[in-house]
Amino acid sequence: MAVDSACDAYLEEHDARHLEELKEFLRIPSVSSLPEHRDDLRRAAEWVADRLRELGARGVELLPTGGNPVVYGEWPAPEGAPTALLYGHYDVQPPDPLNLWESPPFEPTVRDGKLYARGAADDKGNMFAPLKAIEALVATQGRVPIGLKCLFEGEEEVGSPSLPGFVRDNAARLKADFALSADGGMWGPDTPSLTLGSKGIAACQLDLRTANTDLHSGQYGAAVPNAVEALARLVTTMHDDAGRVTVPGFYDAVRELSGEERAQMAQVPFDEEEYRGRLGLEALWGEPGYTVLERAWARPTLDLNGIWGGFTGEGLKTVTPCEAHAKITCRLVPDQEPAKIVDLIEAHARAHCPLGATVTLRRFPGAARPFAIRPDHPALQAAGRVLAELYGKEPLPIRIGGTLPVAETLQTELGADLVFFSWGMPDSQVHAPNERYRLADFTYARRAYCALLNELAKDA
Amino acid sequence: MAVDSACDAYLEEHDARHLEELKEFLRIPSVSSLPEHRDDLRRAAEWVADRLRELGARGVELLPTGGNPVVYGEWPAPEGAPTALLYGHYDVQPPDPLNLWESPPFEPTVRDGKLYARGAADDKGNMFAPLKAIEALVATQGRVPIGLKCLFEGEEEVGSPSLPGFVRDNAARLKADFALSADGGMWGPDTPSLTLGSKGIAACQLDLRTANTDLHSGQYGAAVPNAVEALARLVTTMHDDAGRVTVPGFYDAVRELSGEERAQMAQVPFDEEEYRGRLGLEALWGEPGYTVLERAWARPTLDLNGIWGGFTGEGLKTVTPCEAHAKITCRLVPDQEPAKIVDLIEAHARAHCPLGATVTLRRFPGAARPFAIRPDHPALQAAGRVLAELYGKEPLPIRIGGTLPVAETLQTELGADLVFFSWGMPDSQVHAPNERYRLADFTYARRAYCALLNELAKDA
Repeated sequence: MAVDSACDAYLEEHDARHLEELKEFLRIPSVSSLPEHRDDLRRAAEWVADRLRELGARGVELLPTGGNPVVYGEWPAPEGAPTALLYGHYDVQPPDPLNLWESPPFEPTVRDGKLYARGAADDKGNMFAPLKAIEALVATQGRVPIGLKCLFEGEEEVGSPSLPGFVRDNAARLKADFALSADGGMWGPDTPSLTLGSKGIAACQLDLRTANTDLHSGQYGAAVPNAVEALARLVTTMHDDAGRVTVPGFYDAVRELSGEERAQMAQVPFDEEEYRGRLGLEALWGEPGYTVLERAWARPTLDLNGIWGGFTGEGLKTVTPCEAHAKITCRLVPDQEPAKIVDLIEAHARAHCPLGATVTLRRFPGAARPFAIRPDHPALQAAGRVLAELYGKEPLPIRIGGTLPVAETLQTELGADLVFFSWGMPDSQVHAPNERYRLADFTYARRAYCALLNELAKDA
Repeated sequence: MAVDSACDAYLEEHDARHLEELKEFLRIPSVSSLPEHRDDLRRAAEWVADRLRELGARGVELLPTGGNPVVYGEWPAPEGAPTALLYGHYDVQPPDPLNLWESPPFEPTVRDGKLYARGAADDKGNMFAPLKAIEALVATQGRVPIGLKCLFEGEEEVGSPSLPGFVRDNAARLKADFALSADGGMWGPDTPSLTLGSKGIAACQLDLRTANTDLHSGQYGAAVPNAVEALARLVTTMHDDAGRVTVPGFYDAVRELSGEERAQMAQVPFDEEEYRGRLGLEALWGEPGYTVLERAWARPTLDLNGIWGGFTGEGLKTVTPCEAHAKITCRLVPDQEPAKIVDLIEAHARAHCPLGATVTLRRFPGAARPFAIRPDHPALQAAGRVLAELYGKEPLPIRIGGTLPVAETLQTELGADLVFFSWGMPDSQVHAPNERYRLADFTYARRAYCALLNELAKDA
């Protein structure tokens, strides 16, 4: 049994105070994308550091980065126990549009068993839960059963620009056997899940040019290449009709799904009709030969995020355009390399650029490698046992179609595989008005972290 | 001999005064696209009406339209002579960008044998020339040799929105055997030309939709149709790779070029290398099997004027777009019908709309039928004889890839075929800074109108 009844009793006894403390955290409007909240970010960081000190953490510091500080603190590992890096973030998204909130975003309010506030789920509630689990463990067992190093950043909602450099520069201090992320999600309120991977990303822009100026469509349209037509022709060479990417080499590094992986994914409940209905789609589109979940989780994509060229205002302008542009992102799976994929797109674009047109490719920053954790990783297995016991059912093995740069950063820079252990829900309204955190999930999260830290100590 | 030496002598004697009068006309900033110039348009119309009265025209009036008035005046046909409708416009383009003018746009200035002013060529200089020819004819012969009805409009530069309705409503008054346009161009300063036709136009917008909202490209991009991709796929079905339009029925009504017409076009000097070099193009694109001039003059086109969809700002947004849009214009040749062509595009778009997407087509106003005049039309033949004599060489038979709605309007509403007889030059800088009118062309135009009106009287 991983779940600890003494911890559970402690958590129940102190539940009201824990909620009040979380509300205090949520009242600090630490919006990282808005410069006017810089002081609030500092206040939030100091509030977290104070909590770490109260819990007996050592070496608590606000570590400078290029931007908002990282809150650091640690509990040394008891003899023979492993050390985990605990990740979370104290910054939040802007609350706009304000008029859609039913209670003010920075006045946390409980309604119907849910705590409403900006950051309630993403990520203040979820990062506060392990701290209260530590409190319970220290109170009931006298110590934290494994080594822990906290890395709480303040720039997650603006893309964690400082994180990779910070982790690289502080690799010795941050060294850990694996990482736990208190940021992330569960499949559903009654359905625990384990995240086995997330996709990488690579992005670029194609700029296509034909004549040296826009031309009169009557005078020239019959005789000259049209940049919009040429770009449409070029981008449509990148998929076949069915949706498979046709850029040569695109799939070369892709690890093919094993029969076991496919069987696992097939177990995850998915209703395609509901999915189409919710999105208002009569048909889906994508790489043939794979189910929707396989495509979303484990097959790479090349997506046109935007296109523009020529006259785009109201009404009509009889121009034959001389330039057109498209933005492209690829979502990548192991072992695709972002820079290599953009090289392949560039070579393909040059090879397929229509006669009379020239194309140049611009690379966007923010590329990230895909992330995957071995399904048999001991920390992941421990997390699975805890969730199974708490919920009375096996967690679903899932993946993320999006990109979680922190996972890949910690893996690459520290060699620390990351286990997502966090209670964001599909209906948490993160990044949206009326963000909420189920009180039941706050309890699950605290109980689960108590159990997980104990379980990880046993493994050693 | 069409050229009349008495007229020529008169024109030479009064040349300086004619130029001063034209300058007076050019000083009125009759910019039809800018509401603050409404009074200037009225002033310009009255100025023209006063000139017609001085010349002895009857029934001179400012006729109301939905917008700026038409200046009307007439000379009844002498016994047995035909009646021509004389078309021109007294409104001008805006002068912006002002800083690129070497002399102020509304202070006409002569430099190097050219008169610089907004409207110098388009169309005040060219429409004033026949009035001065009439003055010479009346002075030297005592009368205008054919019937003339003047239709000078004030909305050409904003697309002549009132003209079709005005012509229809005043068909009886405007009735004529044919029309002469004092608006239009010549192939070059030393190369007279006759315009045999211009293209029609039809325009529409395609609005394509996939999901009911933009989607996160990581979560959904692998599984759902992408509106930008779908629209690119749809629009590229409208041409084959070589540039032939593949919309079924598009070419059905097209009159195939005769061997004679092709031979005529082949005679027109055209340097493809110079053309490509000037436009900065390594290759041309368009319907195969036709020369550049044949395509530009006598083959219909389907042109993408603009495209947009998804994220088009700076940097990157990882969206799978749910809508995308394209603007299309077709340039049409006899006997294509604009409405029918848009019907064909709509049917094609529906048939080729990718799975999971829906497309709607919006029709733009301003459709116009193509225009063509029989090469053996007596008035055109007369114009050809006059030009051949004046220039000492045969005029080139040319066509216009653009659209001249007035030509089709007069043909359809009055049954009057239109002969372009006007001296716009490729380097006149119409619609651009430093618009200019060669004084030599002002002289050619006045002499030519004297000769043409005499020649047309002989025909009868």
